[in-house]
Parts: sequence; C-alpha cells; structure tokens
Amino acid sequence: MIIVMSPGATQEDLAKVTRKLERVGLKAHLSTGEERTIVGVIGDKKTIANLEMNMMSGVEKTVRITEKYKLVSREFHPEDSVIDVAGVPVGGKRLVVMAGPCSVESIEQLREAARAVKDGGAQFLRGGAFKPRTSPYDFQGLAEDGLKMLRQVADEFGLKVVTEIVDKDDIDLVGEYADLYQVGARNMQNFQLLKALGKVKKPVMLKRGLSATISEWLNAAEYIAAGGNEQIIFCERGIRTYETFTRNTLDLSAVAAVKELSHLPVIVDPSHGTGRWQMVQPMARGAVAVGADGLIIEVHPHPEIALSDGDQSLKPGKFNAVMQELREIAAVMGRTI
Amino acid sequence: MIIVMSPGATQEDLAKVTRKLERVGLKAHLSTGEERTIVGVIGDKKTIANLEMNMMSGVEKTVRITEKYKLVSREFHPEDSVIDVAGVPVGGKRLVVMAGPCSVESIEQLREAARAVKDGGAQFLRGGAFKPRTSPYDFQGLAEDGLKMLRQVADEFGLKVVTEIVDKDDIDLVGEYADLYQVGARNMQNFQLLKALGKVKKPVMLKRGLSATISEWLNAAEYIAAGGNEQIIFCERGIRTYETFTRNTLDLSAVAAVKELSHLPVIVDPSHGTGRWQMVQPMARGAVAVGADGLIIEVHPHPEIALSDGDQSLKPGKFNAVMQELREIAAVMGRTI
Amino acid sequence: MIIVMSPGATQEDLAKVTRKLERVGLKAHLSTGEERTIVGVIGDKKTIANLEMNMMSGVEKTVRITEKYKLVSREFHPEDSVIDVAGVPVGGKRLVVMAGPCSVESIEQLREAARAVKDGGAQFLRGGAFKPRTSPYDFQGLAEDGLKMLRQVADEFGLKVVTEIVDKDDIDLVGEYADLYQVGARNMQNFQLLKALGKVKKPVMLKRGLSATISEWLNAAEYIAAGGNEQIIFCERGIRTYETFTRNTLDLSAVAAVKELSHLPVIVDPSHGTGRWQMVQPMARGAVAVGADGLIIEVHPHPEIALSDGDQSLKPGKFNAVMQELREIAAVMGRTI
Amino acid sequence: MIIVMSPGATQEDLAKVTRKLERVGLKAHLSTGEERTIVGVIGDKKTIANLEMNMMSGVEKTVRITEKYKLVSREFHPEDSVIDVAGVPVGGKRLVVMAGPCSVESIEQLREAARAVKDGGAQFLRGGAFKPRTSPYDFQGLAEDGLKMLRQVADEFGLKVVTEIVDKDDIDLVGEYADLYQVGARNMQNFQLLKALGKVKKPVMLKRGLSATISEWLNAAEYIAAGGNEQIIFCERGIRTYETFTRNTLDLSAVAAVKELSHLPVIVDPSHGTGRWQMVQPMARGAVAVGADGLIIEVHPHPEIALSDGDQSLKPGKFNAVMQELREIAAVMGRTI
Repeated sequence: MIIVMSPGATQEDLAKVTRKLERVGLKAHLSTGEERTIVGVIGDKKTIANLEMNMMSGVEKTVRITEKYKLVSREFHPEDSVIDVAGVPVGGKRLVVMAGPCSVESIEQLREAARAVKDGGAQFLRGGAFKPRTSPYDFQGLAEDGLKMLRQVADEFGLKVVTEIVDKDDIDLVGEYADLYQVGARNMQNFQLLKALGKVKKPVMLKRGLSATISEWLNAAEYIAAGGNEQIIFCERGIRTYETFTRNTLDLSAVAAVKELSHLPVIVDPSHGTGRWQMVQPMARGAVAVGADGLIIEVHPHPEIALSDGDQSLKPGKFNAVMQELREIAAVMGRTI
Repeated sequence: MIIVMSPGATQEDLAKVTRKLERVGLKAHLSTGEERTIVGVIGDKKTIANLEMNMMSGVEKTVRITEKYKLVSREFHPEDSVIDVAGVPVGGKRLVVMAGPCSVESIEQLREAARAVKDGGAQFLRGGAFKPRTSPYDFQGLAEDGLKMLRQVADEFGLKVVTEIVDKDDIDLVGEYADLYQVGARNMQNFQLLKALGKVKKPVMLKRGLSATISEWLNAAEYIAAGGNEQIIFCERGIRTYETFTRNTLDLSAVAAVKELSHLPVIVDPSHGTGRWQMVQPMARGAVAVGADGLIIEVHPHPEIALSDGDQSLKPGKFNAVMQELREIAAVMGRTI
Repeated sequence: MIIVMSPGATQEDLAKVTRKLERVGLKAHLSTGEERTIVGVIGDKKTIANLEMNMMSGVEKTVRITEKYKLVSREFHPEDSVIDVAGVPVGGKRLVVMAGPCSVESIEQLREAARAVKDGGAQFLRGGAFKPRTSPYDFQGLAEDGLKMLRQVADEFGLKVVTEIVDKDDIDLVGEYADLYQVGARNMQNFQLLKALGKVKKPVMLKRGLSATISEWLNAAEYIAAGGNEQIIFCERGIRTYETFTRNTLDLSAVAAVKELSHLPVIVDPSHGTGRWQMVQPMARGAVAVGADGLIIEVHPHPEIALSDGDQSLKPGKFNAVMQELREIAAVMGRTI
Repeated sequence: MIIVMSPGATQEDLAKVTRKLERVGLKAHLSTGEERTIVGVIGDKKTIANLEMNMMSGVEKTVRITEKYKLVSREFHPEDSVIDVAGVPVGGKRLVVMAGPCSVESIEQLREAARAVKDGGAQFLRGGAFKPRTSPYDFQGLAEDGLKMLRQVADEFGLKVVTEIVDKDDIDLVGEYADLYQVGARNMQNFQLLKALGKVKKPVMLKRGLSATISEWLNAAEYIAAGGNEQIIFCERGIRTYETFTRNTLDLSAVAAVKELSHLPVIVDPSHGTGRWQMVQPMARGAVAVGADGLIIEVHPHPEIALSDGDQSLKPGKFNAVMQELREIAAVMGRTI
C-alpha cells in the first residue's frame, strides 16, 4: 500500500501515520517530494490488506498495490491449469463445447436437443433445472425432474452434464446428476454458495456477474479455491452496459485479461452474452480467436416455442454450421474441438 | 406485448404469428402501416409474460408493455405503505434514521457508537455480524457473537436492531436478535434468500444491487411479497458507474422513481453510496429533500481504526451535526425526525 | 507518479528506470518491499505528467498521484468563486434559476414561457437556437432568428439569456445576444470550442459529458481557464447508465464532489437529467439540498406540442410550485432564491 | 410509433390523442386490451419522428418503432459497401490494416515506424498530428508539420495516410495530406464537424463515442451521409465501463451488430480499445474472426519513450507476429490481408 499525504499534512500527521503502521508491525518508507510526502508501506500482506488509513489526518488517499486473490492467480501458478470434468479435460489443447436448451422442458425436447449437440461434436449437454428469473412469476425450472432428464439423456448420447446450482442446500442433489456445477451471474458473489462449493470434489464453472470487475470475479473464484476446491472454470457471459440492441455486451476482452491474470480455463457464452441468435456465430468465432478454452451455446430444437430465452437459441442446423467454423478457427490457434 | 413485423414479412408469417397467439388463448390486433404491420397482443397477462415470439419468421422485435411486479407496485396499491418495525413506523410522516458501525467489532466499540446514535436521535442501531466481502481473506464478521452484542447494546439504549442476513439458514438466528432483516446489494437477486424471507413475519430492507435496474429491484421485492411478506423497505446504496472518485454513485433519482412506481418506503445509504465521509452530509440532506423515508448512516467512534469501511464512517460529533441539518430539511418536507 | 516494479524485476531493470528518470531531470526514491520495489518519482509536475514508463522492462504499473487541472481546483483557490453574469452573481448566497423551453420555437411561445419564468422568480431565460440532435432529420433550431427572439423577450421581462453554442464560428454571433454561453454535454470535450471560449470575456456554463468522469469534467474546464477565461460554471445534467426508466441518471453526488474539488459554481439540470417532468420537482429540491448553486429547468407553456423534449418540461403552474418549495430548502441552506 | 395509454385513461384522453394525430396528418389505429388501449400511429415517418405525445393526459408511454437513420442502414442498402480510399478498397474481401504511432513525433520516429508497418504488410500509415487530450497541458500534436511528415514518409513507403481531424476549419489542410479523415471518439457527436465532412469528397472513418449506443453511432454517420458523403468507415475503439484493468472495454459485439444493421465497413482499434499492448494480439485476432473489415494498430519503434499512449503500442517485431496470425484467421473467413 502507498499512502499519499496531502500537501497540507504536518510533521505530526506524518508521525501519527508512521506510528500507526509500526504498531501493527509494518514499516513506513518515506518519499518526500516538493508538494507531497508519499509513504510506502512494507510488511505482512494480510496486515496491509486490512489496513484503513484514509481517515487519518493529513492522508489524501491510499493506493493498493497487490490484488488479494492468490490461488487463482497466474503469478502464483504460471502454467495453464487443465480441469478434468468427468474425464473431459478443460483448458488443454482441445476446446470444449457445452450446448443445449436454456431450460429443461421435457424429455422429448431434451432428446432432440441432445442429438443436435452430439452430432455437432459438443461434449457437454447443458440445461437449467433451477432457473433464477427476474420475476417470481416466470418459469422457475423443473427442479429434480429436470436434473433426472438431463442425466438420462446425456447418458443416452454419451455427453457430460453441466447445470446451474442456485442454492447450497442442493449441492448433493445437483451433484448426483451433474458433472459440472454452474454458478450463475446473479450468484457470483453469493459467498455462502461459493464457500459451500469450496468443500466439494466436483469442478465448478463460475459465470461473471452482470457488472463484476475482473478483479471481483477472480476474488469470487478465490472463495471456492480457498475452501479447497481449485477445480474452477470461468465463464464470460456478457456485462451490463447502456446498450439496448443486445441483451448484454459480451466482453471478449475479459477473456484475454483473465488468461493473463489467472491459470484457470475460460469459457464464453455467446447466447446469453448477446441475447440474439444472429450474433452467436460471429461472437463464438471471436471467442475462440481471442483464446477462450471453450463455449457454452444454447441449442433448442424449436426455439420459437421455448419457455425461456428462445431469442438466443440456435436451431440444430445452425449449430452444426457454427461448429464447423469453430473447428477452422481452432486449428489456426493450434487447437482442436 | 406488441409485436413489430419486419418490412419484409409475408402474409404467411403474419398468419403464423396470429395462429400461435390464438393457440395459447390470446388475441391479435393488427395495425397495418405503410412499411410494417404491428400486432397488439391482448389477453391473459401471465400467458403474455411467458410468450416468446422473436424467433418467428417475419418478427422484427417485440415490446413488452407491462411490468411483471404487482404487489409492490403503486398501480396496485396507490396509497403509501407504512411498515411497522418493532413499533417504529417506516414510511410515515416521521423519518427513520439507522446508524452505527459497518461491522460489529467489540462491545465497547458498539456501546460508544450506540451512545452517539441515540444522542443524535436515531431509532435504529445498525452493524454487520455477517459481512459479505469481496475477498475471502477479509474480515467476515463476528457472526452470532456480533448479533448478541447488537441486541444487548441496542436494548441498553432503547434502539431497534437492523442487520444483514447473507444465508437463508440464518433466518431464525438473525431473527432472534434483529428487528429488521437487511438484504445486501450482492444478494438482491439471491432468489432463494428472498423466497425464504417471503415466509417470515419480520420486515425486510432490500438494498439495491450494484447495477440493478429499478424494474429488477421491484421484481426482487416482488419475490418477498409473493411469498406472503409485504413488509418491505427499499434501500438505495449507490450504483456502479465508471467514476472512481467515489466508491459508488449514489443514485438519488432512484428514490424519486421508486416513490412513483411503488407504495413501499425507501431509505438511503449515503455512507456506502459514496464511500467518503466528506460526502455523507450533503447526500443525506439531498436524500431527504428528494423524498426518502429515512437514512442509514455509518457512525464509528474511531473510524481510523475500523476493521471495515472506515473511510465512509462519521465520528459521533459529525453525526450529530448531520442530524441537526436533516431535521430542518425534513421540516420543509412536512416531516419530522 | 509512483512506479510499481514487478516481483520479477531485475536490478538492471531498476537501474534503467532510474536512469530514464534522471535523464529528464527527475529523481527516483526507492521503497524496497519483500516482493516489490516501489519507485516514487520526484520533480517537475509537467515533466512527470508526460512520462510514459509502463512499457519499460520490469515495470508492473504506474500510479498517478496528482490531477492535471489546476486553475479550476480548490487546492489552488480555496475560496468559492462567484461568477458575475451580466450583473447576476452565480455561486454566492443567492441561488440562480434559469428556465424556459428546450428549443426556441416562436416569439409567442417564448413570451408565454418568459412570463412564467419571471413570475416564478427565475433570473435567466433559457432556450436553444442551435440544437445538437442525435439524428440529422430532427429539428435543429431556429439559429440567429432564435437568438434574436431570446434577447428580445428576455429584455421585455428583465431576464438574462443563456443559450447553447455548438460551433466556435458562432462565438461572436451568440455573444451578441447571450449573457452566458452554454456548452452542451456532447461538446464537453470539443477542445477546439473550449479553447476558443477561453479567449472570450463572457462566462461559460460547461455541461458534463454523458459519461465524463469528474476529473475529465474539471480538465475540460481547465481548457477554458488555461486560455484566460476563468468565468466558468459547471452544470450537472445526468449521466448515462443502464437504466431505461429515466432518460439519464441525474448524478447529484457529482455536485458534492465538484464542490469539494473546485471553487467554481455548480448548477443542476433536473429536466434533461431525468427526462420526466414528474421527477423535476423532487430532484430540484435534492439539488439545492446537496449544495448546488442553482438550477436550469425546462418550462414550456404547452409541452404537449413542443418540438423537442416536451416530456421533461414543466407547465407554468407547476414551475411556480417548484420555485416555492426551492425557496424553503434554500432557506435551510442559508441561501435565498 | 406506438402510444400506450394508462389503465386510467378516459375516452376523452383517447379522443384528444387521436385528434392530435389527425391534425398533423397521421392515423391512429387502436388496440383495446383488458387494461390498456394501445394506439398504433400510422403515416409519414418524418412527422412521426418529431411527434411528442408523452405529456398528453392519459398517455403512459410511447415506443418508437423505427430507427431514424436511413442512408447508412442495411435495410436501405442490403449489399455490403466497399469504400475506395485512394485506390485501396475497404470492406471487400481483402482486410485493411492501418498502423503507426499514436502521435507523430519526428521524421525519424515515423520512418522507423513506417518501415515496420510496410514490412508487416499494412496498407495505411496512421499517426496523429492534432491530438485531442484530456488535459490542456498534455502534448497536443505537431499540427501541419506532423501532417507533412506523415505524407512524406507514407509516400516513401507506398502507404496511404489516415489521420485525425478535430476542427472543421482544418478540413482543407488535413485533406491536402491525408487519404482518409479520422473522426475521434470525443467528436462522434460534434455535429458541426460531421456536417462539414458530409460536403467533402474524401472518405471518413468515424470512431465510436466513449459511451455511444450503436444507434447513436449510426445516426452520427447519417449526418455525414445526409450531407452527400457516403464514403464512411466505422471504427470500434472500446467503450467506457467500470473496468479499470483495461483503458476501455473493446466491444467486439458491436462489430457484429453494425455489420447486421449497416452496409458500411467496420474497423477495430485494439490498441486504444484495451490500452495494453499485451492484449492487442488476442483482440486483433478476435476482431477478424467476428467479421471486422480491418484493424488500426499502434506501432511505435520505441514505445517506452513515446509522447503519448506508449503503453498500448507494439514494437515492430511484435507487430510482424500479429500480422502473421491475422493472415491465418482471415483465411478461415475467406479473406486476405
């Protein structure tokens, strides 16, 4: 931490700052400029992290130098991590594709979708059984019935299951059916859920919050890692901006940023990220070219009658075409799908 | 809902749209313009709410006309609601002030703060026992020990207790000590928590999410109300913008908007909302003038050594001065403190 | 400036940084921590302002300590400035109110509006003759004809004239009719216009850009001041956020911030700032309570037939009621209207 | 336009709305629902565009159906446009790359940069002679001297010149040296400049404003087109969000959106868009994969001593590597560089 003293700070102010630091075992290193004195704080990271200095007389502002997350950072672990999800490596040379409907609606719908997902070459079936919806009057998902259908259909087609968890009480239940827990954007800072997922032995895909900074996202992952579960996959799904043409603003620059700051894999969701099926294809291509480790795409056999998010779902034929293009972009990146 | 057909839509496209609406019991009302046909959808609100039409051929876009929330809306309940919190009416002629430290740290700290809170004329003691923090390595609160101190000290000074709940498993525990549950910004769309609070008999103060629209905020409250608990108080605490001088951008215009759209009381938090103690006083005055029903303010006997959020806490003397000014603004508004 | 060296920086990296600083006449002050070395840069402000260090090997990041603006800063000029606009002091004990239609449409419209403005107790007639509109096909204003009407009608009622300037070529023309130049949000960083206004002898009201930080706003004002014209008034008019209920998000916290950072007066525009006439009254009250030095309000005799921005205009009767309330809030603030 | 009447609107309210529409030659088409009546407005587009109805009694809200821009829209002109810039087609099968330093500093710097630009295979030399800077005390560019150097060095290497114009008075001057005018983000809604550029015979590259919606961006281009100059190229350069790790948030989804809504070419600036040289390479790849028609990249022979924006400049060797990768991604897209 750096403490910037105001131009009007007195010697007494400075002495008090120094004494406060010394009292908690830290050292002050002074740089005296023409107008201001700057105090470099040296010592134990955790003590510094909890330091509050802005209220002290003569202090103009403080600047934090180091991020608080550690286990998820590339500084701590320079090599890329590959997460094993039920035998499918995520973060390695081969890109992973997760696809399926937004919500599980029926076994027939799911089976039709799964066929398309499998034919396209994806490895995961996605589908929501618990749906966090803005309004209490919207369809909230089929719950355990939905989970059962997901598992059954995924097994029929040799696919893995990724599905959202919205309640820590459901960890065992969801874990019984899913290969990968998904934490949705609205729960990115549901710290109770994150702490509980830190205790499980299954990997977790952590979606970015609607207006989360990259630092907050990594710190949220650190909650899971600090609990003992370092099997984490990030998922960029669009941020909230003032734009109204798209549902969210899919932030591919966050992919490049997270790949620089963390060793963990990053997946992109161009369906929720744009809210428009017309944009899924170009944004999926862009995601792979930026360096994403995979994609999660909404595929629905009949999106025009979907119970949620039909506008952003691809029909099976279109999904196939998208996968074909992704293979070519992946090849340029030295990767496969 | 209004469906805007694209200029290139065919008669067949239009017929399919009409048939789909009829199939679910809705009526289509056509307006044929020079370039586009517009379809007004008439019928059951809930059916319309779940309608997905954008994927249909020839549909350019759809526009939703009505908000989904109902119980919390002023359209449904035109008169202001007054919420009774352990005998203190919130939303009536008298403004309510909640004050105290960000985190409960010790009985001595809390007692000193409570004395200032009481002397200033506030009715509630605030203080966090469960703290949702960005990093897992930050101070997370004293949990039940903190709750006990809050209750004990509040009782000593004749104050009510408001404190944050972060986990639905703690509803009984927190309810044993608190008079008012506070749901923090990060949990505004933690729907499991909201649903659980819909079942309790105690009032809930719902803080606005970091980048929640006003509509999302009202819909979140609707989750609580739909469960049976209509004792809800809104709390504006600043939104996330690109500004870095303040911690958040305190949005007083949201107060005016919510007072227009809902019958429920609105409280303002100028401490978290700005993150700078220097700005608490002017923003508290502004809040009352805009029409807020009360304030929640951080007061700490020694903010320079606070374990969290010291930068935004008022010292007791300053708090007293703030209260004095608020009384005068309140008088202009025909209210008291 | 502070330079934070990365944990892996070598002694050679550090030596190069030091040498680069010395070459341009600056001094390096080193603080050596456990993991990182931090370099405080000491010397001439302007040299530091132009320094680029981030590309150098071993540099993790740089932190700028001082703002670049000076003439407009309170650090440079601690006392409040009062700007004289054709005999009306702005920024003193008496609040200033500017009111009138968004666009000048006809002499009759303007005269009706001016009567209401005068009756309400405002000192300035506002009205646009040059309108910057999002679309080239929208009404662009009456140009010089509008300016003439403004001057004529203002003189009839003993009011001052404030109007927008959008082109530096119009400085003389607008100056002939107006008492106060208004620079609109879209031109806040039209530096050519700002530089030209730095050369005139008339005061300038600088609206905040749609997504301008407070620092950028003060720097924009510094362009005018650096040219020799320190007669500057700030005007907060709402920022762009994700909210759609209001046209903009009126940021009253910016008023408190600018009053802290600058000695210049700040005016608030609740009409453009909200885009809804229903919110003008509460937000105007809030503005005065936060500490604004005045208001600019849209008043139109017949807003339902206005050529621009009718939705946010007050009718004369409502304007009168607003002014009455503002007087009472002003009195609490020790001010008059 | 659609007018939504409030549930409490009377027959008289509705009659007034209808009469107002008829008075200006428009027709009202009513859809009467259970709670609300909806009025479809039919008739002349321009009349509708200028209609203000929200102030009328009984009107809840109005919804605009059609965008105001026309000449730049794909609806008006379905085929992709190819813009000829001094013999180089932009928007066709071959991608265009513009590269060079942020500011022109000296003939030597420019010559070194131009060599790298040419060697990498770019077609345009970029470089600022007029620099719009946040602070009046920052380096403002070499003006005409800079323009001369640009032209001279570009000619030496067989490159075209793109450079920023900040003042309509400089149109002839800049036009003498440049092949393509660049309008910067801060001037995207400098309508006087846009109107003046609508009269010239040279193509214009219009950068997106810091927080411009896609609709505003297209409307800004319409200003140029409406003046008679349809030779327009869009340039996405990052939007302002709350993120602080990057300088801006490069919005590749805007590229896909503009390609859908307009027939004009779109270029991407990953240098300003991220502000970090480390992110230029992945974001440049992403841009091509999303469908951009080209890139503008900062290349500086010695970025560590650049007078502006060194942090985001590539060294010549790195630029070469980036170009190599872009060729491979372009090939997948069926394009060349």
